Amino acid sequence: MIVVMAPRDSAATKQRILEAAMSEFAEFGLAGARVDRIATRAGANKQLLYAYFGSKEGLFDSVLEAGLVHLLDVIPFTADDLPAYAGALFDFAVAHPELARLVRWHQLERPGVLNRLPQAVESNKRKLEALVAAQKAGKISDALPADQLLGLLLALIHGGAETQIASDELAVQREALVAGVRRLTERS
Amino acid sequence: MIVVMAPRDSAATKQRILEAAMSEFAEFGLAGARVDRIATRAGANKQLLYAYFGSKEGLFDSVLEAGLVHLLDVIPFTADDLPAYAGALFDFAVAHPELARLVRWHQLERPGVLNRLPQAVESNKRKLEALVAAQKAGKISDALPADQLLGLLLALIHGGAETQIASDELAVQREALVAGVRRLTERS
Repeated sequence: MIVVMAPRDSAATKQRILEAAMSEFAEFGLAGARVDRIATRAGANKQLLYAYFGSKEGLFDSVLEAGLVHLLDVIPFTADDLPAYAGALFDFAVAHPELARLVRWHQLERPGVLNRLPQAVESNKRKLEALVAAQKAGKISDALPADQLLGLLLALIHGGAETQIASDELAVQREALVAGVRRLTERS
Repeated sequence: MIVVMAPRDSAATKQRILEAAMSEFAEFGLAGARVDRIATRAGANKQLLYAYFGSKEGLFDSVLEAGLVHLLDVIPFTADDLPAYAGALFDFAVAHPELARLVRWHQLERPGVLNRLPQAVESNKRKLEALVAAQKAGKISDALPADQLLGLLLALIHGGAETQIASDELAVQREALVAGVRRLTERS
């Protein structure tokens, strides 16, 4: 058994590995990614990478978790102004196309795993509670049950690849998203 | 130069190759797919496959085109009853999960190519015209420009992976989609 000692700057090394892995997985997906390239780009050795993340799949999941945590940090969910929230998420996706690609690869190559990640479960639970509370307070439409409304909002927000069919212009896509969310959520 | 003679049943052979390629690409994507496996499964030789489709990428595009043509055949777009149209597409996606996977791989591995395929361009043009006509006739809401409305409808319809976050139950997802499309399109 080989014991890998954690160096003093293990947090910084982990962070460098996660960043290198984000680029690699976003470009090539799980099957196409090369652990060698990730280790080289991170300036870490492969043994350390496996010691930290267990496996290529473990690293893939960890990168996604870190991406979701970062996203939730930067744009916390709020039901107070859902059109504005959707617009902010749109801007984030434009600025960070690698996260959207990572999510898509993950859905194809690890189907069903994303929705069972603790961060995703917890985040969706909180979103649902916020929608239920906003409906009870009469702030948003209760024409649809909160779980169905949440599904629709997420589909609109993350369906960016499809909205490109209708227009190449980011400003038009953003405007459509914000208007669509408003129409789904405003009280009639 | 090797001249490959087309056999008498070339249409049937092409069809078998396309079907085998659909399974292979839907499972593994473009980079992960093996042309050898496709040829073996189709009972065709690899030279013939390249003669018909040019390259692995050419075959990937052809499979997607054939899938879109089939979909448009089975469920023609109509603006007469958009909630029912969305419901029918949902049922098709459930029955043919391989097409949705193929589209997602294609978006990741050949970004931007799908929207330039002649079948996709023509189909989107017709969808847009139908929405414009339905808005002019007062059959659906004109609160949003037709191109933005089309983008939102496609995002809702194809954002199935995201609606699974809110519920595992197909019936609930379908109901949410139909209700969402109704809410986006009905005149207020």
